[in-house]
Amino acid sequence: MKIKPKFTTYKKKVRESFERQNFMKLIDAKLIDIQPGYCEIHVPYSSNLTQQHGFFHAGVISTVADNTAGYAAFSLMEEHSSVLTVEFKINLISPGDGELLIGKSNVLKNGRTLTICNSEVYIVKDGNEKLCAAAQLTLIELKNSTDKKLIK
Amino acid sequence: MKIKPKFTTYKKKVRESFERQNFMKLIDAKLIDIQPGYCEIHVPYSSNLTQQHGFFHAGVISTVADNTAGYAAFSLMEEHSSVLTVEFKINLISPGDGELLIGKSNVLKNGRTLTICNSEVYIVKDGNEKLCAAAQLTLIELKNSTDKKLIK
Amino acid sequence: MKIKPKFTTYKKKVRESFERQNFMKLIDAKLIDIQPGYCEIHVPYSSNLTQQHGFFHAGVISTVADNTAGYAAFSLMEEHSSVLTVEFKINLISPGDGELLIGKSNVLKNGRTLTICNSEVYIVKDGNEKLCAAAQLTLIELKNSTDKKLIK
Amino acid sequence: MKIKPKFTTYKKKVRESFERQNFMKLIDAKLIDIQPGYCEIHVPYSSNLTQQHGFFHAGVISTVADNTAGYAAFSLMEEHSSVLTVEFKINLISPGDGELLIGKSNVLKNGRTLTICNSEVYIVKDGNEKLCAAAQLTLIELKNSTDKKLIK
Repeated sequence: MKIKPKFTTYKKKVRESFERQNFMKLIDAKLIDIQPGYCEIHVPYSSNLTQQHGFFHAGVISTVADNTAGYAAFSLMEEHSSVLTVEFKINLISPGDGELLIGKSNVLKNGRTLTICNSEVYIVKDGNEKLCAAAQLTLIELKNSTDKKLIK
Repeated sequence: MKIKPKFTTYKKKVRESFERQNFMKLIDAKLIDIQPGYCEIHVPYSSNLTQQHGFFHAGVISTVADNTAGYAAFSLMEEHSSVLTVEFKINLISPGDGELLIGKSNVLKNGRTLTICNSEVYIVKDGNEKLCAAAQLTLIELKNSTDKKLIK
Repeated sequence: MKIKPKFTTYKKKVRESFERQNFMKLIDAKLIDIQPGYCEIHVPYSSNLTQQHGFFHAGVISTVADNTAGYAAFSLMEEHSSVLTVEFKINLISPGDGELLIGKSNVLKNGRTLTICNSEVYIVKDGNEKLCAAAQLTLIELKNSTDKKLIK
Repeated sequence: MKIKPKFTTYKKKVRESFERQNFMKLIDAKLIDIQPGYCEIHVPYSSNLTQQHGFFHAGVISTVADNTAGYAAFSLMEEHSSVLTVEFKINLISPGDGELLIGKSNVLKNGRTLTICNSEVYIVKDGNEKLCAAAQLTLIELKNSTDKKLIK
């Protein structure tokens, strides 16, 4: 699939949106790469992010799967659009036992209204990468809407 | 469906497991209620938990949907079992715009190995409750395994 | 949720659409009930519809879950809209071992563009009804489009 | 992922199981290829298989996605196991408008109890192949159980 962004400053737009997400700061997520139809996010291990066995919590893994897809989709949308997740499905394949989570998402189909993405989340332990989770997601493009904080 | 717990101290077991999840402390989640096949978790609004519009992040909403299901399922499992999420699917129905997230999960089917749950997450704004997300989840019971932190 | 159809002849529109689906005839599906935001479809057992154990095939069960949701959603759409399934997730909870499949779907949220439904499929054996599958589905409303056969 | 079948006659076992599924005959599905962790099924167009616009019904598309995954998973299981679909999620990406449906499924993770697969269904029109649907599925291995028709 040839995928071309609709305006030149899409990377800047994605980075600014990512920075507005306070929850990314809370979990110390880093936006590593953004390409047309692709996004990569890393989260280093912290004992704050764990479930009962001391591994990355499924909620953190899901957050990474969702956010990489959101920005992979966002990279292909129009300049004055914002993005929302409609729904996603995730399989938790291996325990999040390691020092780093790596999320990667690719756009499978970029439609006029809906975009479908596949996200994979890897867990790195002692330098070895292993598939931790796989997700399939549906995002919606909201045209002529702001990505910024809404005044309440 | 008549659902009976398999041992008397299931509530204590769920509470202790919840307390071992550091990620619950990080997002300030509170275990409000646990019944056989039912769990309720609340998360008050904090600007730490937001996405780009200043609303609850989808990752927080998904975490609540997943964790309520995990403990609803856990409440029906055997005394020496632990629980893992196999997979889930969530629809984000309304923006997480409000002062409190309320997650409620019910067991739909408690099988020998797999348990199926439905979770609903509500957003409360100015005291009014609204459906924010709905999820369907598959959990697996790991018999004779510990719920505690694994020594590495 | 108070749900009101947008025009008076919605039942007729649903029935005519159902009759245009040849696949419903092939599997002998019957449209039993249509209400605003609700649809019920039955499929009697036939050895044509079976998987390797002689039970209803998961494909038939999924078809029923999908089609009931499609028409539950369609009943709330505008007069000149058509409906498509965006995606669905289904848990196959009990084997389809019985003489009749009963699908029931309810609209959970009827948005401007997207509608979310929950479908339940029951299997009836010796007159006893049992939950066979549960699904959560996303449908899209295509405004000013035809539901009829497209000339190729 | 290196995937090795657990016994030499796995292809024969899959073909015999496929032939026991009467629903495959009804929709004229053909088992085209079976490899360790991979399955391909084709369904030629027939007006019997259509929805209201005259395209392949979503139920047929889902059946293909499910069945390819079932046999991709089955190819890696033990000789005396049978397979059941636990759940699946499918995105319907393009209308099933064409002369042939091609389903392909790959095993993503083959665990002791659960196997996760990704299925893609393509629609062929005038010889051109297009992605029609993508699914993610969870299958369960039932050890020491028969794949044959159960005597009632």
